[in-house]
Amino acid sequence: MKELADVQAGAPAIDIAIDRVGVRGLRFPLRLRDRARGIQTVTARGALGVDLPASRRGTHMSRFVEVLDAWQEELGCQSMRNLLERLRERLGSSRAWASFEFAYLMRKPAPASAGAAGMAYDCSVSAELAEQLACTLGIQVPVMTVCPCSRAISAVGAHSQRALIRMKIRIERFVWLEDVILLAEAAGSSPVYPLLKREDEKFVTEAAFASPAFVEDVARRVAASLEAHPHALAFEVEVESMESIHNHNAFAVIRGGAGQ
Amino acid sequence: MKELADVQAGAPAIDIAIDRVGVRGLRFPLRLRDRARGIQTVTARGALGVDLPASRRGTHMSRFVEVLDAWQEELGCQSMRNLLERLRERLGSSRAWASFEFAYLMRKPAPASAGAAGMAYDCSVSAELAEQLACTLGIQVPVMTVCPCSRAISAVGAHSQRALIRMKIRIERFVWLEDVILLAEAAGSSPVYPLLKREDEKFVTEAAFASPAFVEDVARRVAASLEAHPHALAFEVEVESMESIHNHNAFAVIRGGAGQ
Amino acid sequence: MKELADVQAGAPAIDIAIDRVGVRGLRFPLRLRDRARGIQTVTARGALGVDLPASRRGTHMSRFVEVLDAWQEELGCQSMRNLLERLRERLGSSRAWASFEFAYLMRKPAPASAGAAGMAYDCSVSAELAEQLACTLGIQVPVMTVCPCSRAISAVGAHSQRALIRMKIRIERFVWLEDVILLAEAAGSSPVYPLLKREDEKFVTEAAFASPAFVEDVARRVAASLEAHPHALAFEVEVESMESIHNHNAFAVIRGGAGQ
Amino acid sequence: MKELADVQAGAPAIDIAIDRVGVRGLRFPLRLRDRARGIQTVTARGALGVDLPASRRGTHMSRFVEVLDAWQEELGCQSMRNLLERLRERLGSSRAWASFEFAYLMRKPAPASAGAAGMAYDCSVSAELAEQLACTLGIQVPVMTVCPCSRAISAVGAHSQRALIRMKIRIERFVWLEDVILLAEAAGSSPVYPLLKREDEKFVTEAAFASPAFVEDVARRVAASLEAHPHALAFEVEVESMESIHNHNAFAVIRGGAGQ
Repeated sequence: MKELADVQAGAPAIDIAIDRVGVRGLRFPLRLRDRARGIQTVTARGALGVDLPASRRGTHMSRFVEVLDAWQEELGCQSMRNLLERLRERLGSSRAWASFEFAYLMRKPAPASAGAAGMAYDCSVSAELAEQLACTLGIQVPVMTVCPCSRAISAVGAHSQRALIRMKIRIERFVWLEDVILLAEAAGSSPVYPLLKREDEKFVTEAAFASPAFVEDVARRVAASLEAHPHALAFEVEVESMESIHNHNAFAVIRGGAGQ
Repeated sequence: MKELADVQAGAPAIDIAIDRVGVRGLRFPLRLRDRARGIQTVTARGALGVDLPASRRGTHMSRFVEVLDAWQEELGCQSMRNLLERLRERLGSSRAWASFEFAYLMRKPAPASAGAAGMAYDCSVSAELAEQLACTLGIQVPVMTVCPCSRAISAVGAHSQRALIRMKIRIERFVWLEDVILLAEAAGSSPVYPLLKREDEKFVTEAAFASPAFVEDVARRVAASLEAHPHALAFEVEVESMESIHNHNAFAVIRGGAGQ
Repeated sequence: MKELADVQAGAPAIDIAIDRVGVRGLRFPLRLRDRARGIQTVTARGALGVDLPASRRGTHMSRFVEVLDAWQEELGCQSMRNLLERLRERLGSSRAWASFEFAYLMRKPAPASAGAAGMAYDCSVSAELAEQLACTLGIQVPVMTVCPCSRAISAVGAHSQRALIRMKIRIERFVWLEDVILLAEAAGSSPVYPLLKREDEKFVTEAAFASPAFVEDVARRVAASLEAHPHALAFEVEVESMESIHNHNAFAVIRGGAGQ
Repeated sequence: MKELADVQAGAPAIDIAIDRVGVRGLRFPLRLRDRARGIQTVTARGALGVDLPASRRGTHMSRFVEVLDAWQEELGCQSMRNLLERLRERLGSSRAWASFEFAYLMRKPAPASAGAAGMAYDCSVSAELAEQLACTLGIQVPVMTVCPCSRAISAVGAHSQRALIRMKIRIERFVWLEDVILLAEAAGSSPVYPLLKREDEKFVTEAAFASPAFVEDVARRVAASLEAHPHALAFEVEVESMESIHNHNAFAVIRGGAGQ
């Protein structure tokens, strides 16, 4: 059989270098360290890319899939480096990048009763390897916020809502997802829970009303905690609250850390 | 130039009739009756379809686009009928169907201050013409709910959240979107507003805490109002609340009306 | 401590029965039968509901979470029945309903080379228990379609695109996801693959161009296969193609089966 | 009536400055310059934000809504500046930011027949005012791509698909959306069209097969055009193709321009 042409290896009509080229929407099993259970395997959604010099027409898309498929390591900064080195090698590129999204399940006890149930947190890990490895952890944590203004000015009550804390954290070594989740949950008026019996609902309501917080307050608390975190090199925290009195949302963003 | 083959007009390999075939994701300008301003033109997203007999291989997709493009009427049951009759005629079908989605803007005054601003409501209209025309109006209305249980059992406060009321209403004649929106907004603990100054926020908080409502309560109030509506032949109402104490939602569904 | 009021157990202000009330957006680990590996555990998204009589104000939302959390069975019609019976019992309802969504991973060999990689299929299972159990399997399968019209009228080439086959199948007993997926993949111009080396890409292109198919053709082929399937009691198949020559999609729907 | 407390104006518990705080999900009518018709009014989705010093607990969310509601200008760099200056003034901030998303409708003639229909392009404009104004235009343009590799190695045909070109362009003065759209449409194997009669489908198929293009090729063509554009100061172009032979997508990104 005659050799099939390698069209991608040819010269492009326009000699502009490409910053990143690759594939998106791959789904694959990903093994995560889980403090309670050792290992948790999730179905992640992945994207992979490399740079492409001005002299090469195209990358070889199937190699991304092969490299990811062969990579069976537990998620961490070192394993991401291994994946990206393999990508650079197979694609002949100077830079390589990967980004994964997944839901992390944690067992969450109710605050007052003996109940417990599982709850999922949307997480991501992305990393780029150029001269050095830059690895970023993303975690979204829902909390409850009670509005301090509504609380102060109203004769009774205060509006509350679910708010989402989204953190992007530059890391160099392993960080427990559980630690970051707890840190964020402490920053709202109250954590949210999968299972609340009546005594729990009373507990959560009263605790939340004792600690009203604007999105600005929540963002600052998370920022202060991340500033104090030994392994968070730099971070961005965004808090978005689904205001119960409006059909639009409020948000606040803080960027911080040594690597800022 | 020789005639291009009409592949669609041929016989299919498998002689099964097709219930509905057509196009989705068309976007086009749609003219709506607006009580305050006369006419409101929005960019709608549309889908169109017809049935196809077992003897015909394919429909002619471009004709859907032509018919919609030529249809310039103000939205209503009669104009939907005109559109569907034209579709049946051009596609040679026995049934025709159309569905449009759009955001309807209304000016909404604040409840206590002199302020006002615009707010959008996600709406839809779908219609099928077979022997008769069946026309359905869809409207989504956000409201605030204060939890009656949390209110009753807590020493202070109660959790509240944004909830979405989604109505599907079988109609035979024109119904003002504004009327249905107001009816739904009256069913929550409070309407939500685009603009609330401090005195408004106090007003809304106190009004909402004076009228706590479960999703079940809201669904029943909307159902009762739609039962009483002279032009709602049948309906489905779904209320979904973005519980501020959970990361999951609560919902309730009621179907009712003469046409049930 | 004094007993906390059971507000939900009271009488509603409006005595209308509620068709379905419950929770949505629960995420939990779900065990699936996997023909290649025995068991596959996925993180599913779940919704649960029951009916509520006109005489009861509210359901008890936390019990849905408890019942689901305690249900640890492998997915199947019998285990869904067990879950729904438990729900009815705990909620004191006459009907119960559950719906789960998840991604099912399968290893998929390339058609010509020795390569293989994983691919995910979006699936769902929903069931309602009233007098009898009605169980519905949902599977979405992407395929490639080459347009027969474009192929017939053009001097060279034909437009092709990714199309999605969405099936809802009423079942009474266990059906392998793998079987339904393969049946659907055989209905397009070609299956799609996670990993294609050059010889595979040549193979897929040539195979697809040898078998051009409209959305109508694909829907009919799937319908014929499901009509012949011994355990598909009734079905709805929808094919939606992301037309490469348009910014809108084409679709076709067929409903069939004994239970129609 | 006694004055209501201004809780936001107080000092925060944690004195960290906030990079951006504001509101999201506002929907409002936006007037755009339209080359064919003079003015096109769309329903946009908007977000607004400002910075907040370490000494102030909260911003005043309602003022964002008021300022946007009062801003009735036609979209452009100067009008965005006016909006942001007003925001800074009303919020007492040093920086202000706004971002709008909307669908822009254009009439699009078929390439061979006399047909024509409307087609929508998803667009955005965002701007930040600090010492200077930085204004960014975003436009997404769908095109068709025919795979050069598949074309070269296959005995017949080649896979094609819809691809999305997403551009972010730093601008200082008005740029016609129409010009950028046309520039992007020229970069694929073929533009896509809302209405194609049979002779048009033949034309598009043959034209696309005469000009096969990888995502890398498309990205380079757009980059070269934007490099040559007199008013594009800097840009990022991303091309994502919904590969018809896979269930995942391919993408390529190039950043360029003087302001890079």
